[in-house]
Amino acid sequence: MTDLQKESLLLHEKYKGKLSIDVKMPLNSMKDLSLAYSPGVAEPCSQIHQHPEKVYDYTIKGNLIAIVTDGTSVLGLGDIGPEASMPVMEGKAALFKAFAGVDAMPICLDTKDPEEIIKTVKLLQPTFGGVNLEDIAAPNCFYIEERLKKEMNIPVFHDDQHGTAIVTAAGLINALKLVDKQLDEIKVVINGAGAAGIAIIKLLLNMGVKDIIMCDTKGAIYEGRPVGMNPVKESVSKMTNRSKSTGQLADVIVGADVFIGVSAAGALTKDMVKTMNRDSIIFAMANPIPEIMPEDAKAAGARVIGTGRSDLPNQVNNVLAFPGIFRGALDVSATDINDEMKAAAVKAIASLIDEEELSADYVIPGPLDSRVVPAVREAVARAAQETGVARKEIFPSEVVNVQP
Amino acid sequence: MTDLQKESLLLHEKYKGKLSIDVKMPLNSMKDLSLAYSPGVAEPCSQIHQHPEKVYDYTIKGNLIAIVTDGTSVLGLGDIGPEASMPVMEGKAALFKAFAGVDAMPICLDTKDPEEIIKTVKLLQPTFGGVNLEDIAAPNCFYIEERLKKEMNIPVFHDDQHGTAIVTAAGLINALKLVDKQLDEIKVVINGAGAAGIAIIKLLLNMGVKDIIMCDTKGAIYEGRPVGMNPVKESVSKMTNRSKSTGQLADVIVGADVFIGVSAAGALTKDMVKTMNRDSIIFAMANPIPEIMPEDAKAAGARVIGTGRSDLPNQVNNVLAFPGIFRGALDVSATDINDEMKAAAVKAIASLIDEEELSADYVIPGPLDSRVVPAVREAVARAAQETGVARKEIFPSEVVNVQP
Repeated sequence: MTDLQKESLLLHEKYKGKLSIDVKMPLNSMKDLSLAYSPGVAEPCSQIHQHPEKVYDYTIKGNLIAIVTDGTSVLGLGDIGPEASMPVMEGKAALFKAFAGVDAMPICLDTKDPEEIIKTVKLLQPTFGGVNLEDIAAPNCFYIEERLKKEMNIPVFHDDQHGTAIVTAAGLINALKLVDKQLDEIKVVINGAGAAGIAIIKLLLNMGVKDIIMCDTKGAIYEGRPVGMNPVKESVSKMTNRSKSTGQLADVIVGADVFIGVSAAGALTKDMVKTMNRDSIIFAMANPIPEIMPEDAKAAGARVIGTGRSDLPNQVNNVLAFPGIFRGALDVSATDINDEMKAAAVKAIASLIDEEELSADYVIPGPLDSRVVPAVREAVARAAQETGVARKEIFPSEVVNVQP
Repeated sequence: MTDLQKESLLLHEKYKGKLSIDVKMPLNSMKDLSLAYSPGVAEPCSQIHQHPEKVYDYTIKGNLIAIVTDGTSVLGLGDIGPEASMPVMEGKAALFKAFAGVDAMPICLDTKDPEEIIKTVKLLQPTFGGVNLEDIAAPNCFYIEERLKKEMNIPVFHDDQHGTAIVTAAGLINALKLVDKQLDEIKVVINGAGAAGIAIIKLLLNMGVKDIIMCDTKGAIYEGRPVGMNPVKESVSKMTNRSKSTGQLADVIVGADVFIGVSAAGALTKDMVKTMNRDSIIFAMANPIPEIMPEDAKAAGARVIGTGRSDLPNQVNNVLAFPGIFRGALDVSATDINDEMKAAAVKAIASLIDEEELSADYVIPGPLDSRVVPAVREAVARAAQETGVARKEIFPSEVVNVQP
């Protein structure tokens, strides 16, 4: 056990977890009790009974999200089960509160059956204003998210997919400015066909990237590949790899402008980087050891390198995305977090670094940059209004309409 | 709308509910983040994965309960649904925190199907250290509680049943001291066959009361009654009314020592009270207007009168029971709240009023009496240890063993 792990364990034992449910309304006298509880409480109950949308006015629901997991894909630990995932879910909830004032509750479920998870989360809908799916293994995570988005009227967001995708895309936009390339002319290779990789593909396609190849452990994914396919990879093969390239990563990386790794330590070699296009961009996000270390990538000719690590430049950290995204969605009581809201978050994160500051080692804002949450929140809330998924309008509609 | 209701509504709108989920571990620096979240958090996760019971040491679970409802029997409002029940559940959670430091989370479910409720609550077990069922209509509440108690390894408690029963029983014990009667020689008539009434029967039988008759709107319940029966009333008819008395409340109240009303305003008349035994005891708990007003009952010869109202003496208020009961159960990480723990709570509440203080207007401690929660907590935790449902022992076992 490292010193950090030892210290973390002691801290968790001392505090017995990280969260506390507290009372925000005064509760000091019999009068207070009669207002917060019986008999006064009957009035907000009756109002909500008559006008269901008032649940957003009189209860915690409008600021409350569930962090839902089955504990099947937790950190690098894998399928450790719902109890053992509690410390991570409490940590995530703590970040939601500390970064964006969102009340978040761990909901660790004692099942891996996607239908049971879907059913349970739907039954919880009266209580929560949003659902953040967390650490649910692929491919179940795709199916669960898709079903819940369709069948619920509150926003559902799988952070392991979209959080990583949004921050990576923001970094990519800024990196492309540095090397003066356009989204629609670059070749992108994504290594790793897990939740984050798939989400990155969808987001980049949505933003205008045309040429993407995804690799898994069997090499490039292409339509009709005879081995190692599943329904998700089938759909990947239809969205990407128009040239039907085959072979290993070393084969398809040749001439690529961008490498995005959501795979394993050391997956990208210096020799591979040398075969990439000039001014190559690399996001090597395997944790804790990246697909290639930045000094090696630079030595082999890469121009911009990002990783998942806090001790290296350009950290791709989900904390840049999920707090502001849910803050914005909750502020307008959104019914969804749609593609437009995700794209708005990407632009908001990228735009925080202006041209003068922009450099190869600074294409992504730092995780503690206090400008991030307000910028993402506003962009996401506006996008929700513009796309008609906001129950409340917090920006005047004439201002919204003149937004680009 | 009364002034109180108006004020309550404004307060709920101002605060947007009553609860807040806060961070109790420091989260001010990158170091703090690395301890509370990745990478440090991997260690408590791994520990729990290897030793599942450590979830009680490293997470909020050991202090966290779910307040579960389907919104079918909320206050006097009836079946108002899960969203509209949120203000009550938040209020209950606020009381849990304010009175006993218990973290409590509303879980308002979008179903009335008992099997779906049971399934959902069971799937939530990894997250919560206890379940308080709330405002679920009879007879579903009995079935749901019974199943969950059998099938879960955390305490399950339906407050509408047992909270009211425990406080009523505590008041009864003290009232009997005043009139010098014994539990096993009194005749008790209970009016109202809902959740609380049934629980009162079970608790009183458990405490040694022999002669109980329950009435519903059709009159006395007896074995083989041809009308208005259901499985729960069948079982009541087998536990009570040994003399097979028939007729209306006015018939069976004759000669009774105790009337317990969990029914409706005005159900007990002065004429009925006049037919009761000398020194009669009346708990008239219909809300907001009791079965009989105390001055009328006294004028008709009753000696001790309790109601549900805070502006009258001897208030039967669940807040005397549920905070201390869950505090005690959670302190020993109990697997159940069993009959012995409930009986211990009854005795603890009753014993707070000593013989010198005891009077007809003071058989139940006030709801803000700060001695109540510590006394109930200790009694319940000891009873849990003595009956083998405590995961942790917080009292030395030799001390426990000499307890009466």
